[in-house]
Amino acid sequence: MTFEHPDRDDIDLSAVLHALSDPQRRGIVAELARSEEPRPCGSFAPDITKSTRTHHFRVLREAGLVEQWKEGTSKMSRLRRDDIDAKFPGLLDSVLSSVPVA
Amino acid sequence: MTFEHPDRDDIDLSAVLHALSDPQRRGIVAELARSEEPRPCGSFAPDITKSTRTHHFRVLREAGLVEQWKEGTSKMSRLRRDDIDAKFPGLLDSVLSSVPVA
Repeated sequence: MTFEHPDRDDIDLSAVLHALSDPQRRGIVAELARSEEPRPCGSFAPDITKSTRTHHFRVLREAGLVEQWKEGTSKMSRLRRDDIDAKFPGLLDSVLSSVPVA
Repeated sequence: MTFEHPDRDDIDLSAVLHALSDPQRRGIVAELARSEEPRPCGSFAPDITKSTRTHHFRVLREAGLVEQWKEGTSKMSRLRRDDIDAKFPGLLDSVLSSVPVA
């Protein structure tokens, strides 16, 4: 199983803003932004169902906000901060500064 | 006919990001950001239908991005820049810097 990701040049502002318009997805992005290391997707948002979490990660990945890959039986994830900051300077900072710290 | 607007305190980031996730709505916001004066809603986006424009303005207004009011037979609009900048510093600037100038 491999995951498809948009190249940096193909990251679209509409998709990014749509992905960030959901508070649970913003929470995941905020947690990833605080992580020094990649994290298993299953370690996020323990209060939502697995299928909802899978959906949110797919929206984030297809928008270009998150990279996902397999390690053994885990799906790992990291924030594509460099790509988003390069394409839309200041956007993530302004959105994340409005996300309450969990 | 009056228009309902959220108070500044009730402006919600999810609604703002959703409103801005549409390229036509971003175009309207970008035009309003360049306007010194309020403008008739009908003067925006002449390539879309009136009903689509009305829909877009309603989404922008309900999100708190735009104020609308009647003047005679016209609907006027202005960007609520102060409110959005106060609630979400840097957000509009970062989004608008990615909108192509029409």
